[in-house]
Amino acid sequence: MDSREGAVRRTRVDGERTRATILRRAAELATVSGLDGLTIGELAASLRMSKSGVYAHFGSKEELQLATVEEARRIFDVEVFEPAAGAEAGVPRLLRLSDAFFTHLQGRTLPGGCFFAGAALEMGSRPGPVKEGILRFQEELVDTITTNVRVAKERGELSRDEDERTLAFEVNSILIGANTSFVLRGDPTVLQTARAVIARRLAPAVT
Amino acid sequence: MDSREGAVRRTRVDGERTRATILRRAAELATVSGLDGLTIGELAASLRMSKSGVYAHFGSKEELQLATVEEARRIFDVEVFEPAAGAEAGVPRLLRLSDAFFTHLQGRTLPGGCFFAGAALEMGSRPGPVKEGILRFQEELVDTITTNVRVAKERGELSRDEDERTLAFEVNSILIGANTSFVLRGDPTVLQTARAVIARRLAPAVT
Repeated sequence: MDSREGAVRRTRVDGERTRATILRRAAELATVSGLDGLTIGELAASLRMSKSGVYAHFGSKEELQLATVEEARRIFDVEVFEPAAGAEAGVPRLLRLSDAFFTHLQGRTLPGGCFFAGAALEMGSRPGPVKEGILRFQEELVDTITTNVRVAKERGELSRDEDERTLAFEVNSILIGANTSFVLRGDPTVLQTARAVIARRLAPAVT
Repeated sequence: MDSREGAVRRTRVDGERTRATILRRAAELATVSGLDGLTIGELAASLRMSKSGVYAHFGSKEELQLATVEEARRIFDVEVFEPAAGAEAGVPRLLRLSDAFFTHLQGRTLPGGCFFAGAALEMGSRPGPVKEGILRFQEELVDTITTNVRVAKERGELSRDEDERTLAFEVNSILIGANTSFVLRGDPTVLQTARAVIARRLAPAVT
């Protein structure tokens, strides 16, 4: 590699790093000030960057919001979906997924709790590509839960009478309810309660 | 009553009516733009009033936010707590409360769903009197559910093994989860699913 190619590559790598730093901060701020409350000015101030420096990466507020949703999705993958995928499909994976979600909350990866729970209520009444991105995430999460309920039924871990979509709604609601209570009270015992509820609900069917 | 007293009273009644109109609109807007997104300017424009006309009723943004939380509480009382109080304490009251909440959502009294579910996530990471008001509401709701679970256990409607706070968390989470899914999808079948989950969870204990 000649020195000019090296310089171009370094510039590109630096640019990607800066973009990643901006987005991580954007995801954090969005859980406190809202996705719509996110301004390039606030973001720049919080990162001690110039507004034009942030602006160079995102041409518009909507572009910034969409990239922030993607970043939140990346964080959720790393902290929740990937640990869950390490467990056997069925009940073990549902327990691991819930557990990873509660750990994600307790560790305060994002200061205002689950990005998507907040964004769903904030953007739910505002049609557009940002809402669509949030909806896609929620559907994927519910689909993952539903699939594992189905596997659990096939394996006899759950009763064949369980309605898959209903139980998936129930599990998803416990995750969402735990987030709301934890954000409001800051008391980790609520996460223990939520873990207990999930464990009991997914306990082996008594036949 | 002489005519001057009559005029004073009319002015006061008009003032109260205007204040009530402003607050109702504030509660509606807050479920779409957020409680913090609520500005006296936006509110005035939405009501075709002058900014100074709105400002005369609320000296500061925090005063407006606190009065809006009170108004949301009044709406919740009328649409959820009061119908619930008409049912027998215990399981019947828990079912009525949940049902009234789902009806409140489905009727779109507030365009962005449950005021308190949204406000909890929006204000949860921002300490202050507005957050305190939202927290007080959530605690009262959970206390109401807990009390009725206790009565249900005493009456043999639920198993004595049920932990009251845990079951209250569970029921509250189903309400919160239903709100999130309904706001995001706008599909009332999710409210039917939520009703079924509550009914099943509170079904008579098999002993």
